[in-house]
Amino acid sequence: MNRRKFIGSAGLASLATGAVLTVPSVVHAKAKYRWKMVTAWPKNFPGLGTNANLLAKTITAMSGGRISVKVYGAKELVPAFEVFDAVAGGTAEMGHAGAYYWKGKTEAAQFFSAIPFGLTAQEMNAWLYYGGGMELWRELYRPFGLIPATTGNSGVQMAGWFNREIKSADDLKGLKMRIPGLGGEVLRRAGGTPVNMPGGELFTSLQSGALDATEWVGPYNDLAFGFYKVAKYYYYPGWHEPGSTMEAIINAKAFDALPGDLQEIVLTACKAANMDMLSEYTARNNQALDVLVNKHKVKVLPLPDEVLKKLRGISDAVVAELAAKDPMSKKIHASVMQFRDQVMPWSKLSEQAFLRARML
Amino acid sequence: MNRRKFIGSAGLASLATGAVLTVPSVVHAKAKYRWKMVTAWPKNFPGLGTNANLLAKTITAMSGGRISVKVYGAKELVPAFEVFDAVAGGTAEMGHAGAYYWKGKTEAAQFFSAIPFGLTAQEMNAWLYYGGGMELWRELYRPFGLIPATTGNSGVQMAGWFNREIKSADDLKGLKMRIPGLGGEVLRRAGGTPVNMPGGELFTSLQSGALDATEWVGPYNDLAFGFYKVAKYYYYPGWHEPGSTMEAIINAKAFDALPGDLQEIVLTACKAANMDMLSEYTARNNQALDVLVNKHKVKVLPLPDEVLKKLRGISDAVVAELAAKDPMSKKIHASVMQFRDQVMPWSKLSEQAFLRARML
Repeated sequence: MNRRKFIGSAGLASLATGAVLTVPSVVHAKAKYRWKMVTAWPKNFPGLGTNANLLAKTITAMSGGRISVKVYGAKELVPAFEVFDAVAGGTAEMGHAGAYYWKGKTEAAQFFSAIPFGLTAQEMNAWLYYGGGMELWRELYRPFGLIPATTGNSGVQMAGWFNREIKSADDLKGLKMRIPGLGGEVLRRAGGTPVNMPGGELFTSLQSGALDATEWVGPYNDLAFGFYKVAKYYYYPGWHEPGSTMEAIINAKAFDALPGDLQEIVLTACKAANMDMLSEYTARNNQALDVLVNKHKVKVLPLPDEVLKKLRGISDAVVAELAAKDPMSKKIHASVMQFRDQVMPWSKLSEQAFLRARML
Repeated sequence: MNRRKFIGSAGLASLATGAVLTVPSVVHAKAKYRWKMVTAWPKNFPGLGTNANLLAKTITAMSGGRISVKVYGAKELVPAFEVFDAVAGGTAEMGHAGAYYWKGKTEAAQFFSAIPFGLTAQEMNAWLYYGGGMELWRELYRPFGLIPATTGNSGVQMAGWFNREIKSADDLKGLKMRIPGLGGEVLRRAGGTPVNMPGGELFTSLQSGALDATEWVGPYNDLAFGFYKVAKYYYYPGWHEPGSTMEAIINAKAFDALPGDLQEIVLTACKAANMDMLSEYTARNNQALDVLVNKHKVKVLPLPDEVLKKLRGISDAVVAELAAKDPMSKKIHASVMQFRDQVMPWSKLSEQAFLRARML
C-alpha cells in the first residue's frame, strides 16, 4: 500500500467516514513475526489443506504482514503425525491437524475431534464455544505448551464404501474395513476386522479384495479418490464421525510473545476458518453427491436401523472406557456427554424436524 | 499496552518464537477510525444484541484500537427500521440487523435472511460462502452504497406459541397469529390472519386473547419473554425461519477508506461472529428447552404432517411470486433454489440421517 496516498485519501474522506488522523509523537519499532504452520495434510488437500492455506492467508492479511504464516504440507517439514511435537517443541509456531491423532500423547484428545454417535458440527461448536469445551481443551494441552483452537469441521461424514451389502449386524462379522480410532474399536467389538491404512493405499486394497470396505470423508473427498470405481455400495450416515473437528495448535510461548492485537487476530482467524470449512464441505459434498448418484450411478444406501442400534450401544461402552483412562478424560467425558444429552432433544425439534418437514 | 516493554520482551523472545524486529526508517502517521454501529435490536438483547457487541469488540481488539466501534441499540441513535438508511447515508459506518427488514428498499433482500422451507444455517452459509450467494448479496446492496456481510444465524426457530391446538390444516383458519414477512403471507393464504406487532406487546396480546398464537425465535429468547405463562402449546419446527441469517452492513465509502488490513479485519470479524451466534443459540436453546419442558411443564408438539405439507406448497408459491418482482429477485431465487434442490439430498444423508440414528 502507498501509505502517503492512503493518508491523503483518508484525510479527505474523514468527515464522511468517521476517520480521524493522529500523528504519533515517537518513532516506534514494529515487531514482525515469521511463523511456520505444519499440517497433517498433503499440501492443498481439498477442504483440509485449503483451510490451512486460508487460515495462514487471513492471519497475514489482517496483521498487514506483521505475522507472515507459511504453510507446510505433511512431510515438507515434519511428517503428519509429528505436527504436535513440532509445534510443542518450537520447530513450528502453528499446526493444523485433528486432535484424535494425539491420543498417544493424551487419550482425551479424541473428545475434541470426533466420537462415535457424538456431536454434529453445530453441536460441537456450541459445546466448545458456549458449553465449556474450549476451556477443557486448553487445560488438556497446557502441559504440552500448546494452545488449541477450532479451525474447521467436515460435517457429518459418510459411513463408507462397501463391497459387501450390510443387511443385518451379522454382515459386520469378518468385515475387513479401514476405519481408524474409536470407530475401529466399535467395529472390532461388532465382529469386524478394523484396519488402519494410509489413504493412498485404499483404492487398490478395495480393488484387490484386501479390504471389504473403507470409510474416508464424504462425497467431496471420496469422489476425488475414485472409490466409486472399485466399491459397490456407499453407506450412510457416518455414525463414527458425525462432526469431525479440525484443530489449529499454537506454540504457547510464540503466542504469549505476540502483542494483544495479534493474539486476537490469530484466534479470530481460526474461528472464521472454522465457519469456512464446514461451508466448503457442505457446498462441495452436495455437488459431489449429485455427480456420484446421477453420473456414476452409485448405489447409496442407509445402514439398517438394527445395525445402527448395535453400533450405538457398543459406541457408548467404548467411549465410557476412554473416560476411565485418566482424570482429565473423565472430566471431559462428563462435560461432553451432559451436553449431548441436553442438546439431543433440541436438535430433534429443530434441525431434524425441519429437514424432515422439508422433504414431506 | 506498554510499547517499550513489549518491544523488549519480544526482542528477548525472538529466537524462540520466530519474531524478527524491524525498525521503520520513517515516522508515519497512523490513521484512527471511530465507527458507529447502529442495530435493529434493544441494546444487549440476548443472542442478537450481544452478537453486535462481540463484533464491535473483536474489530476493535484485532485492530489494536485503530478502529474503535461503538454499538448503539435500537432508538439510541436511529430506530430499528432505519438502520439501512442510517448506514447508507453515513450517519453510522456499520449496521447490525436482518435483511428481511429492507424489503421496502429491495424485495430480494428477503432471500438473505430466511425464506419458508428454505435453507438451514449450515446450508445458508454454504450457499453464501461457496455457492455464489455472497456475490449476489453484494450486487444487490451495491446501488445503495452498502457492503453486506453475514454476522450470525439463529438456527432453526420454533413454529411458535399457540392457544389453539393445531390438529389439521383447518385449525389454521381464522387463526390470529403474530407472524411477519413471507411466513405471514403463507398463513394468510392458509386461511389465517397474520398480525405484525412489536415483541413487547406479544405477552399481553396472548393473555387477552387478542392473539391466538405468536412466533418469536426459539427457547432461549422465548423463555425470557415468559410466553409459557400465557400460551398452552409450543409447536415445532420453525418452517417459516429455518436458518435466519443476521447481517452486518457497512458503508462502502467508509470501508473503501480503510487500509487493506483493516478491511480484512472487519470482514473476518463478521465471519467469526457468524460462527459465534449459531453456537450461542444452539447451547442456550438446549438449556432453555430443558427448563421449559422440565420446570415449566410446557407441552411441546410437532405440527402435523398434513399441516406442514400444506404450508410447504403455499410457501413455494409465495417465494416464486417474490422471484417475479424484478430481475435481481429472479436471479437470486434461481441461485438459492438450485442450491436448495442440490443440498437437500445431502442434508438428508448426513445431518438428518445421523440425528435420527442417534435417537434410535
